[in-house]
Amino acid sequence: MTKPIGPIPAGFSADSDGMLLIGGRRADALVAEAGTPLFAYDLKSVAAKAALFREHFDDVDLHFAVKANPYTAILQRMLKLVDGFDLASGGELETAIAAGAAPRTMSIAGPGKRDAELEAAIRHGVTINLESEGEAGRALAIAERLDVTPRLAVRVNPDFEIKGSGMRMGGGAKPFGVDAERVPALVRTILDASADWQGFHIFAGSQALSADALIEAQQATLDLAETLSEAVGADLPKLNLGGGFGIPYVHGDQSLDIVPIGSALRARIAARGPRLRGTRFAIELGRWLVGECGIYLTRIVDRKVSKGKTFLITDGGMQHQLAASGNFGQVIRRNYPVAIASAFGSDTVEEVSIVGCLCTPLDILADDVMMPRADVGDLVAMFLAGAYGLTASPQAFLSQAPAREMVVGGD
Amino acid sequence: MTKPIGPIPAGFSADSDGMLLIGGRRADALVAEAGTPLFAYDLKSVAAKAALFREHFDDVDLHFAVKANPYTAILQRMLKLVDGFDLASGGELETAIAAGAAPRTMSIAGPGKRDAELEAAIRHGVTINLESEGEAGRALAIAERLDVTPRLAVRVNPDFEIKGSGMRMGGGAKPFGVDAERVPALVRTILDASADWQGFHIFAGSQALSADALIEAQQATLDLAETLSEAVGADLPKLNLGGGFGIPYVHGDQSLDIVPIGSALRARIAARGPRLRGTRFAIELGRWLVGECGIYLTRIVDRKVSKGKTFLITDGGMQHQLAASGNFGQVIRRNYPVAIASAFGSDTVEEVSIVGCLCTPLDILADDVMMPRADVGDLVAMFLAGAYGLTASPQAFLSQAPAREMVVGGD
Repeated sequence: MTKPIGPIPAGFSADSDGMLLIGGRRADALVAEAGTPLFAYDLKSVAAKAALFREHFDDVDLHFAVKANPYTAILQRMLKLVDGFDLASGGELETAIAAGAAPRTMSIAGPGKRDAELEAAIRHGVTINLESEGEAGRALAIAERLDVTPRLAVRVNPDFEIKGSGMRMGGGAKPFGVDAERVPALVRTILDASADWQGFHIFAGSQALSADALIEAQQATLDLAETLSEAVGADLPKLNLGGGFGIPYVHGDQSLDIVPIGSALRARIAARGPRLRGTRFAIELGRWLVGECGIYLTRIVDRKVSKGKTFLITDGGMQHQLAASGNFGQVIRRNYPVAIASAFGSDTVEEVSIVGCLCTPLDILADDVMMPRADVGDLVAMFLAGAYGLTASPQAFLSQAPAREMVVGGD
Repeated sequence: MTKPIGPIPAGFSADSDGMLLIGGRRADALVAEAGTPLFAYDLKSVAAKAALFREHFDDVDLHFAVKANPYTAILQRMLKLVDGFDLASGGELETAIAAGAAPRTMSIAGPGKRDAELEAAIRHGVTINLESEGEAGRALAIAERLDVTPRLAVRVNPDFEIKGSGMRMGGGAKPFGVDAERVPALVRTILDASADWQGFHIFAGSQALSADALIEAQQATLDLAETLSEAVGADLPKLNLGGGFGIPYVHGDQSLDIVPIGSALRARIAARGPRLRGTRFAIELGRWLVGECGIYLTRIVDRKVSKGKTFLITDGGMQHQLAASGNFGQVIRRNYPVAIASAFGSDTVEEVSIVGCLCTPLDILADDVMMPRADVGDLVAMFLAGAYGLTASPQAFLSQAPAREMVVGGD
């Protein structure tokens, strides 16, 4: 039975040959330049998303969550688009510095920061989002040893989560952050130690497609930040509201409308209490900024029929696009948007399954989908490959050929 | 609610300090040498598994499926333990050659072999398990261009599968192999082209824990090989029966008893028909040979309590052990066997969740398990990390520190 695919992001078109254009260039020209399998990232798409954010969140800093895509050319483009970089490891700190980002615009989060990572963050003046009292103790001890004033924030484990979010980061027992009721005591410890107090990081979920749910979570986040700041008895310098803006991946997903989120947040900020008067607010986005900019291009290596079913076998697969294969935490596999790049927008004429080259039945890129006719040598385009794609995939699996990455649409 | 863990493989013990021994060496000594996160592979365990196979399958070749673990020191040990190496990519071909394996003992399978991979296999005299008529045509054309006689086998998509296997490789429409009814015509094409006919590869499933199911599949494999050889009208030089021998991972899994499998296969081979009189038989094993040899050692970076639940946060995680985190194709997450290395065999005193250092709720190594008391600095040992561990995981995810690998128990 034919299965639907997810929605192809807006703005893609073909030239007169029917060849998919990516950032204004033909998909086959990109492949001729870089080979397959190829991740092509359209930087104009990223800039457009950042501009859309700025239009509706003019009083809120925009941070990039580097973990979504740490490719250097992406980070370099972000330098002009965002106000800060949020890191998840010491490795990301090195990558961001190498790309030219200023450490003082960075913060680092993550429940298992090693001492060496804390030390690197403190030396560079990166804000540390503390995840526990134990980590706070380690960070203060390292700072004292280095004789450096550390920039410290506290990641709060809130009592709420974004309803319907793809991934819950708050609500209930979590390895992330400090339970809200223990936060005031920890902040007082930080203040008493004369650290550079940077405020709160409150992250309630990710990949949400409901504006109402995000509005509700952001209101709750400001409420919580006010309550905690009152309990501490100190003004709040900064509040990182997390992100959580999702993008539609599968059939039935609706695009997120950020306009009402911006309006509601502006109104809530205008009504903030005294402890938040001087607060800088930040939203940390990864997937929403870069997810749609990436296309994963593979070449069809074989076309075969088994028991009446047609398989298009590509030179890529789950080793580069694990989530699209349905094997990255998903309970039910659903097709991401996909197209035959050389017949983009053409009428669909046959039902096929598009698979990767791995010798495992898990390696499915698109299952029972209607496509135009495609043969050996044609290119398959998988959309939504810009976030949590290559780095979130088992690249060494079966020692297959590595993927290449390139950007298009740069200045 | 406390959840069970999978069975710890037999043979592990602690020294008088309660420190886990791996291949006779203390876990903390291995970590002092190599650091964490660390995959330690016990080569004596591998040799013992190979010897167990030899004892019960004395008339069957033993092949190693390189994809299970392509670490060079493992391959080097295999040189003396197995009769052949089965590859899943051109990358594995290079790795196996570099480890010292003879190309003529190798075969390569995989539905998406690129022309360059076919050419490398033909040049080196590696047997190609053809997955389609199209691939056969490409291989024959490349061989003609190179003026080399290619060693060709046909991978058959059988009509049966191993009942209850963890991963079905046969039965119904599949991207793997050629549907049985089309095989005779393809073999005649190969014979007519004067290629070096190498026989069949028939692989019906993997990770099976039922001896009865494996016996049934092997009998059906020989039946099918005989039927196909009769239809071709030629003797069968070799039959690769695939593997499928599983190991117990989670609570309730029973260890596979290979003794009756060996007996049944010996009897079936004794009763083989005329076209299989001179056939060499091979079983291709990966997980069963090396899965139990590997231990993944991580260090506890933080110990924290959230809403009454205790988390042990380690410096490793799903970026190295994706399957153990429950995010590699599993529908329901179940705990693999795990232990506190410094208190191995001690009484369990508390319920904890052991998580990785990644900033995602997917990064669970053991959920709600009873453990001895463990603190920051202690080592966590995850068992069954020898197959489909590091290379089957998203190592670049969140740019975390790389894992190290080492072998113990070598000659």
